[in-house]
Order: sequence, then structure tokens, then C-alpha cells
Amino acid sequence: MSLNIIKVGGAVVEDAALRDKFLEKFAAVSGNKVLVHGGGRTATSVAARLGIETKMAEGRRITDAAMLDVVTMVYGGLVNKTIVARLQAFGVNALGLTGADMHCITAHKRPVKDIDYGFVGDVDAVNVDAFKMLLDAGVVPVVTPLSFDPAGNMLNTNADTIATEVAKALSSELDNEVTLTFCFEKKGVLSNPDDDNSVISVIDSENYGKLKAEGVISGGMIPKLDNAFSALRAGVSKVVITNAADLTRGTVVML
Amino acid sequence: MSLNIIKVGGAVVEDAALRDKFLEKFAAVSGNKVLVHGGGRTATSVAARLGIETKMAEGRRITDAAMLDVVTMVYGGLVNKTIVARLQAFGVNALGLTGADMHCITAHKRPVKDIDYGFVGDVDAVNVDAFKMLLDAGVVPVVTPLSFDPAGNMLNTNADTIATEVAKALSSELDNEVTLTFCFEKKGVLSNPDDDNSVISVIDSENYGKLKAEGVISGGMIPKLDNAFSALRAGVSKVVITNAADLTRGTVVML
Repeated sequence: MSLNIIKVGGAVVEDAALRDKFLEKFAAVSGNKVLVHGGGRTATSVAARLGIETKMAEGRRITDAAMLDVVTMVYGGLVNKTIVARLQAFGVNALGLTGADMHCITAHKRPVKDIDYGFVGDVDAVNVDAFKMLLDAGVVPVVTPLSFDPAGNMLNTNADTIATEVAKALSSELDNEVTLTFCFEKKGVLSNPDDDNSVISVIDSENYGKLKAEGVISGGMIPKLDNAFSALRAGVSKVVITNAADLTRGTVVML
Repeated sequence: MSLNIIKVGGAVVEDAALRDKFLEKFAAVSGNKVLVHGGGRTATSVAARLGIETKMAEGRRITDAAMLDVVTMVYGGLVNKTIVARLQAFGVNALGLTGADMHCITAHKRPVKDIDYGFVGDVDAVNVDAFKMLLDAGVVPVVTPLSFDPAGNMLNTNADTIATEVAKALSSELDNEVTLTFCFEKKGVLSNPDDDNSVISVIDSENYGKLKAEGVISGGMIPKLDNAFSALRAGVSKVVITNAADLTRGTVVML
């Protein structure tokens, strides 16, 4: 079977109009599909209102116990359930999932090296049987960026990583043709950050190194592309980086 | 098949030690089971920290838009996912559900009569097929007190009501032997509120009126018992009101 795994984050999950526009597009995608969402800025604003300071290191949130409660509330509750309810209105039989639900994404707390990220999970396993059961029943999993350790603790895991790990597991174990799509604000990976139309149509392992060396690809785009290549190497058929309002074009990442 | 629907709320969902003690008992319940949880006081404290005032009318929370976000975060996120993760640690394949997930509990916003309860949902339908599919797969639904309207809005619905509606639907449509258990701090319905051991062993339609008239049963116990009788009249086999640490005894409600 073919399967679309689509990751969305940033403004698209925060702004109701952008969100509904995206979800309508998502609803129209045919066949089996999984949505993975982020929700970072909402967590930051709720944390601020609760008097909890957001600390970042290398672009990643440091998750102490208080922040873990915030992300569990915001990602697993507010953002996830709002998306699920809106998708139901668009006719999609959505089901919100954290890693703990049906044991679907297990992880371990990241060991402390230079930086103590706190309650951040590095994924160990995706429960392919759970996803398969849901997809076979016509259910559309809506996965929030929370994994868990089997001792019963929620852990915060980057949404791009969740999407990548789910895509890898579902392509290798189910013989699926899996397309992994990362949506963001831009139309794709840009060769000129000031020109929204300078989308690089294909990035492959050959030009990736060159684009990095030239500084064309930098910052947060590097882990996203590293995730993309790791997915392709694990058997994912296709990775696309595109705008949430236009799921069909963008940058195609190839080995 | 026999099915246990167990509702828990109050201190049991707020205090980690009480919660784990209850969840361990719940994990040991054999056969198919559904957990329905409340979470009221946590929502009140999170709302207060966010500067949102909690307003009540006749013991029910008034849910304006800001409070709806709070209960979606707290019930659907923090409380639900903490319970799901803990249950997984106890070997229960739990799955958190709001009414929107798999379209499992649809409702309409309560019409305004004397009191405007805001975004509060009166249940219209329980998706029996969704529950059946999950139970057949060995999944244990953990239902949070949020329903939704098919236009895509979350709604706040009392957890006793959710438990009652799920019990009614699953007993009438699946020919199940359903036991509905309401857990709370006391050992059962007490004949003397100052004596924790004065548990009334059986309440039936005959002595219920008398106990109400005498003032033995009053306050929040009345809607709980009304729910119990409504469940029995709809075909639920047995209703028990008991302590969360002892699921086997307590007050049995009979027609």
C-alpha cells in the first residue's frame, strides 16, 4: 500500500486560518496517511503565561519537569485535539496519539553529554502493528511530538524526528511505498533566502554537501535534511520539503 | 463479552501515589475494560496560574473559550497522557481518547436556558464500532471528559456522564454484560457522612427516594445516582459506587 506521512509545524499549527487551509489539503490526500505535528511556539507562550522560562540549546527545547507538563498539555492536549477535531469536521477519521498511546513510540531519556536536555526522548521503537491496525481500519493517526519510556514517563521528542522514525518503521516492516513530506512556511528549500521562488527542486547526496559548504543550506534546515536522508537510506521511497498550503510541489530529496 | 467501565476522578487523578495505587488495581481487572477519568481540580489550578477565573454553576464548570483551552490541555493532555503512560508501565495497552478521536463521542453545545454553561456538550452518540474495534484488539480506551460536535469543536462534558453514556451504548448495542463503577474518595454511599464505614450496601429505586427525602443522599451524590439509575434502565447490568483503592466492594445500585 502507499502511505503518506506528513509533518507540519510552525505557524500552520498556531494560526486557525492557516491550519484549516492545510487540514483541508491534508483531508484531500488519498490513501493511507499519518499526520505528525509540532507546536513549539504555543508551548513557549503557555509556559511564559505559567511563569516557566523556556530554555533552548542548539535550537532544541530543554525540557525540565515543569516544561514536560507544559508540552504534555500543549502538544498532547490543545494542539493535538484541536487538529483531531478539525480533521473530523473535514471527514477524516483522525485519532490523536502520543508515544504512550497503544505503546506506539517508545524511547529512552537522552543521556547527558555536553548539554542536559532533560526529559527528551531518543526513539527506540515504533509499534508498527498499532499503526497497521489503525490504518487498516481507516483511522488517520495524528501524532504529537511526545514519546515515552516503558517505565511510564512521557518524553519530549522533536516532531521531524518522530515523522522520520514513523516513516522508516512503516516502510521497512510493511513493504509500503512511503512518502514523507515535511511542511513549513517556505515553498521548499530555497537557494536564496530572500527569494521565496528560488526553490531547489532536487537535493541529492551529491549536491547536499556542496550546498552546505556554500552556506546555502544552514541552520535548522541541516537536521531536517539529515532526517530526510536517513529516512531514504532506511527505505522511505520519497521525501518532500514543501509549503503546507501546497503539498504537491517543493523540494524533492533523493539519495 | 463482559466489560468493565470504571470512572475515576478527584484526588485519585491528582495525587501520584493514589493514582498509581488505583491504576495498579485497574490493571489487575480482567477482561475488557474502559477507564473514564475526570480532572477538575487540576484544571482549576492551571487556569488560576494562567490568570483565568473558574466559574461554577450548580457544581458544574462554566466553560468559556479560554477555559475550553484549559480543559483541552489539562484533561486531554496532562491528565490523560499521564494516566496512559502509567498504565502502559503496568502492562495495560492504553489509548487516550477525547470525543473527537475516532469520532467516539459526539455531542451538541448545551442550549442556554437559565445558565449559560458555555462550551459544554450534551452527548448525542457514542461510536460503538470504534470502541468495539479497540477492545477487540486488546486496547484499553482511557476516555477524557471531552466530547465534540461534528463541526469540529471540542466540548466539555462531565466525566460521570461520559462514563454513563459509554456504558449505555456498549451494553445496548453489543449485548455486553457491562459493569459501570464510579470510584471516589469514600468507600461507597455513606448513611452517615461522618462515619466512613457506614456504607449503604444496596441502593434500589425503592429506598433511593426515601434516602433522598431524609437527606441521607444529597448534593453531588444525586446526579451520580441519577446517572446510575439511567444506566441500569438502559441495560447496564450492574452499577457500583466505591473507593478507588478497592474496586470490589462499595454500594451496589439496582433497579
